[in-house]
Order: sequence, then structure tokens, then C-alpha cells
Amino acid sequence: MADTDPFLSAGNLLVLDVPLPLDGGQSLEGVRIAYETCGTLNADKSNAILLFHALTMDQHVVSTHPRTGKPGWWRNSVGPGKPIDTDRFFVICANVLGGCMGSTGPASAAADGTPYAMRFPVITIRDMVRAQIALLDALGIERLHAAVGGSMGGMLALSLAANFPERTKAALVIASTARHSAQNIAFHEVGRQAIMADPKWKNGDYGTGKGPEAGLAVARMAAHITYLSEAGLTEKFGRRLQDRPDGTKGAKTFGFDADFQVESYLRHQGLSFTGRFDANSYLYITRAMDYFDLAEEVSGGEGGGGRLAEAFAGTTARFCLVSFDTDWLYPTAESRHVAHALNAAGAAVSCVELSAPYGHDSFLLDVPALDRVIAGFLNA
Amino acid sequence: MADTDPFLSAGNLLVLDVPLPLDGGQSLEGVRIAYETCGTLNADKSNAILLFHALTMDQHVVSTHPRTGKPGWWRNSVGPGKPIDTDRFFVICANVLGGCMGSTGPASAAADGTPYAMRFPVITIRDMVRAQIALLDALGIERLHAAVGGSMGGMLALSLAANFPERTKAALVIASTARHSAQNIAFHEVGRQAIMADPKWKNGDYGTGKGPEAGLAVARMAAHITYLSEAGLTEKFGRRLQDRPDGTKGAKTFGFDADFQVESYLRHQGLSFTGRFDANSYLYITRAMDYFDLAEEVSGGEGGGGRLAEAFAGTTARFCLVSFDTDWLYPTAESRHVAHALNAAGAAVSCVELSAPYGHDSFLLDVPALDRVIAGFLNA
Repeated sequence: MADTDPFLSAGNLLVLDVPLPLDGGQSLEGVRIAYETCGTLNADKSNAILLFHALTMDQHVVSTHPRTGKPGWWRNSVGPGKPIDTDRFFVICANVLGGCMGSTGPASAAADGTPYAMRFPVITIRDMVRAQIALLDALGIERLHAAVGGSMGGMLALSLAANFPERTKAALVIASTARHSAQNIAFHEVGRQAIMADPKWKNGDYGTGKGPEAGLAVARMAAHITYLSEAGLTEKFGRRLQDRPDGTKGAKTFGFDADFQVESYLRHQGLSFTGRFDANSYLYITRAMDYFDLAEEVSGGEGGGGRLAEAFAGTTARFCLVSFDTDWLYPTAESRHVAHALNAAGAAVSCVELSAPYGHDSFLLDVPALDRVIAGFLNA
Repeated sequence: MADTDPFLSAGNLLVLDVPLPLDGGQSLEGVRIAYETCGTLNADKSNAILLFHALTMDQHVVSTHPRTGKPGWWRNSVGPGKPIDTDRFFVICANVLGGCMGSTGPASAAADGTPYAMRFPVITIRDMVRAQIALLDALGIERLHAAVGGSMGGMLALSLAANFPERTKAALVIASTARHSAQNIAFHEVGRQAIMADPKWKNGDYGTGKGPEAGLAVARMAAHITYLSEAGLTEKFGRRLQDRPDGTKGAKTFGFDADFQVESYLRHQGLSFTGRFDANSYLYITRAMDYFDLAEEVSGGEGGGGRLAEAFAGTTARFCLVSFDTDWLYPTAESRHVAHALNAAGAAVSCVELSAPYGHDSFLLDVPALDRVIAGFLNA
């Protein structure tokens, strides 16, 4: 079946031999989990770090991306002698359930041999974590040295620590949140509506051909603005005009070309995204993020109920929460909210706000202070 | 020709008998300006206040909107005994050039009898002001008591004061800016791309039939998020779930319906907008706003050059700049930037930051402190 999946990538693949139960009540048969590892698992299997990727990332943490040809997304911080030191740790990163880089998702073949498309069940962050717990089981790893993630990856790290407290000794959560806010949901909804408004979406049944690329590009553009700070955008682009392909110096064209550099940049972000990401995966993963509220996930409450401290009642893990002062997507207040709950639950937690000009995206960029925090926490 | 325009509204109409020159180098023949007035012009024509509307508003300041049936957009603040007191002042508000409520715009008929669509020239904020200066000329008003506007309307008020300094004694600028930032441009570009990605846009030639409604709705949704504060969204909607039309209490559906109230609200904002606004007008007006940088407008520089103080060199007007502490679209820093330039130009200026929870939209909502500032400034 795997060869019908246009987004399948090379690497390690685990196929689960038991159905994966889902929060929505359904279960998925034959779940595939594509993952990458780096470093060596020690004899007592105590040196494993599970990295969780962000919304549009995947398992290619250090390896070259098979679609874009770009270096792995966290090569800055993961590798021999790096803050996440693969001379010491065995690092695992799996494409999330619902993704499009080899793990089972809406582009995967269902039992009838055709892609699930919108027949794929709506999944949650906890469902994604469950799939990766199955991966840990398969690898014989009972307890992680640490669960680590930024942005959506941080939600998975928090969910793992809360729902499977015996499975990790530590959780490092970067630029993330324990719940999606109304504004977070609103931006995702704009993206989903942009995809669904594209006639090429065809209710998800675009098959392996060209999907709703225009809609997906708009979704990516809207989201991308939220990843950058206002000041960062001003510094990087300001109101500077775009030079023309023929070398003409930038000028207002009194037309609808990308006159401003920021327009050109955003259009490029949108277009390049469609070549590497599946539109239906984007719908399902953003939905999982919007559904995420760790307090209600654990309490069973809905619509913002539940006390977050109760979610962490069973934990013995150490926590480190890192935020960035220019991140308006998941601002420092969200990390503090988690820290207060962890304090109330009696957990060991440190909460660090770093200064970096790049907004939410800071967690992926070269921020030396972040490297120091990561290394300090993992080596403690 | 007017009857080919599906967006023509009743009210006062001025047709210019000379071509209107435009910043882009072209000129427009037979420009129509649809406007509303309230109050009585006094004998020496010294009591006129020109109100400028925001991006998606129009001349229906106090009158019921012919398309939505809703009360005029500033009935809170304009009327007999109101902060903009029509017992005392003669209030004028015109649909901007490029608009779709009766003034000449892309939906208007060109010389060949068919809509301009994308043949309409790209216009600027100053072009919009020029059209309204022509309206003042037609009404015999040499000098305004005040030019007043919020959001885009504030840009027009600033542009009038800078480019036609002899035409107003005062300018009241609310929740606005003297330049569109990279982030402002980025959000508008997302909206334009959403419209242009809709196959029903047809390069603008959708005629009088259904236009790119899905794309326009997405554009509106993205923009609408920027009009509200994060805290306001959280207070108004939080993560509360939407009750179903059949009365079922809100619950996660594990589908892609509008589970959250904020999703439902945004979808409604998008859909209801398409019934009252022309997609091509949205393209042209957002373009004008993105092109707006008063410093470069006056200096002739491009791409962020020019000193704003020079723009105000000729002014003798009093200025009042009002911002809201939760407005992240045009934050207080932008008003301060204008105030510093006005100070450098030796102009009389007061700069007021008001506290209101609604974000940018505060200027349209019931904020008593704003009413006091408006009344105080206009009656001084």
C-alpha cells in the first residue's frame, strides 16, 4: 500500500501490528511510523531523546530533506558535540500521525487501496503521542532521557509527560503552549478555509495529482506571518521594494506585482510549501492543534474546562519551558501558565524567557542562548 | 453608465467635470463621488467636518446601510448632541475613490460601458483625498473645521493635512498610521492572494455576477483577526464550543465543522462581507493602503525614505492622534511616530492612548473616553 503514498520518504519505518486507538473513538489499522534516528542507543536504553517536530516539519532533523534538498531542520542543535549531543544521546524523531512524510496520514492508502483523504479520522495531539509511544515500545525504550519539542512539538512533549508520565525523565518544551487560544484557532481556521475554498481541493479527493496548491499557499502565507515578529519583519523587509528580475531597481509598479520585498518573500513561502506538504495533512494537523487543551484532554472536560495542574498530577519528570520575548503566537504568558500548573503539581520546572528578534521562529534559528539552555537541561 | 454598477447606492452624487489626476500618472474621467451629509452648512461654510471611512466602510455614517440594513457605522458618535455634533457641524462622508458604494471604482463602467475591473488604475491614499478635495470645491468649502478618520480614514486625514494644508483647521486621527508596516502589507497580501487564487475572480472580469466570494471571505477572515486583540478574542470566545443548529450542546465533532465559537464567528464575518463588498475594490483599496507612506509620498522618495516632519512643513492645523493600547494593527508607537514628526514641524499636536479591550476595532465601538476626546478636540 505504501507505494500509493506520494509523500512517502526514505528512512526507518515501523508498521504497528495492533490497531491504534484514537481519542475520537475510532482506531487505525496498520499504522506506519516513519522515523529518523541519530546516535547510538546504550545497553540499558536509558539515553534516548524523543524529538517532536512542529506543524510543517518532519522526521528529517539532521538528514537532508528528500523533497527540498535542504539540511535537516534542527542540524543547528542536534549532532555530535551539539547541544543535543548525539555522541551521548540516541535521538529519535518520527513524522507525526496525520503527517505526509511516511507516517500514516490522509494521503495514505486506506483498506480499499485509495487514499483516506477526508475519510481519515480527526486525530488529536494525544493520538500522535500514542503512535510514538508504540514506537518507543517497538524500540524497547521504557523511559526516555527526555522528550523535546518546539511549537507543536512542545505540545506533544507536554502531552507525553502528562498522559504517559512513566515514559520520560524530562520534558523540554520550547515556544509552545498547553492550549490553543482563540486567536491561534482563528489563524488556523483561515488556513483551512483557504484550502477548502480551492476548487482543486475537491472535498479532499485530489488524489495523487495536483492538489489545492493555491489554497495551501494562502494558508501557509497567513500562518507564516504569525511565525515572525512585527519588529523582525520591519528589520528584514520594512517597506523596501523588490528589484525586478531584469535587474531594474525596485519601484512601485502601480499594479499588483510583488512590489514590496515582504510580498515577494511571502509568495515564495506559500509556493515552496505546496511542493513539500499535503493539503489534507495540513487540515488534520491544524485541527489536532486547535483541539489541544491539555487541561481538558486529561480531565475529559470540553471547551476550556479542567485544571491544568491535574494533568501533571502523576509526573515525576523535570520540566524546562523556554519562550521567546518576541513570540506572539505562543507568548511567554503561555509558558508561565504551564509553569504555574507544574508548580501546583509539585513538579520540578524551570521557565526561561529568551530574547531573540525573530518571533516564534526563533526556536529554529541560531539563538546561542537557546543552545545553552538545551545543553544545560539535558546534561543536568 | 451608472446603472451598470451593481454597488451603486442612493444618496448624494457628485460627478466631476474635469479629469482627476492620479499619482500613478494616469487620470480618471467622469469621476463619481457618492457622499452623505448630516447637519447644516453655516453661512460662511466654516463648520464642515469631513469624515473619512475605513477600508470596508463607506459613506453611510448615520444612515441605514442599503445592503446590510444595519445602522450607519458611526451612529454612536455622530448626530445631534453626539461627540461629532450635527447640531453644530456639517458632517460630510464620501465613499472613497476605488470603493464600491457609488463612488468610481473597479466595478464602475469604463468608457466602453463595461466595468473597469483590473483596467482600473492603481490609486493611492492621496488620490482618494484629491477626489474629496474636488467634493469640497463643489460644495464651496474652502477650509474644513476638521478632517476626521479612523484606521484608513486616519491615513486620509493625515494625507489631507499634509498635502492640502490650507484646507483644514484640524485633523483628528484615530487608530491609524502614517505608513503601512511590513506586517500590515503582509496581511493585505494574504488577502489579495486569497482573492486572486479563487478561479471565480477571473483576473477581475467576474462582471456583475457572483465574484470570488470564497476568496474574498478568506481575505476578510484574515484581516478580521488583525482588528481584534488576542485578549479580546479570548474573552469573547476563548475555547468555547458552538451549540448546534438543532440545539445540541457544543461538543468536539472530530470533523471540520465550526466546533469552536471563534470559527463560527470568523466564517460568518467572511460570508457576510461578500454580500456587501466588491472583491476588486478590496484589491485596489488594500493596495492604496500598502503604498501609503506619508513621508515618501511628500518627498517623492520610495521604499521607506523621506522624513515625515517634512510632510507637515506647511501645516497650521491642530492635530489629535488617538490610539488604543490593545491595537496591534496600528499600535500606539505609530501614533507617537506621527506626533514626533508633527512636533519637529512645529505643529500643535496632542497624542492620546486610550485603554480599551477590543483591539483595533475599538475606534468603532462604544468607548466613552474616545467620545470625550473627540468632543473636546472638535469643540476646542
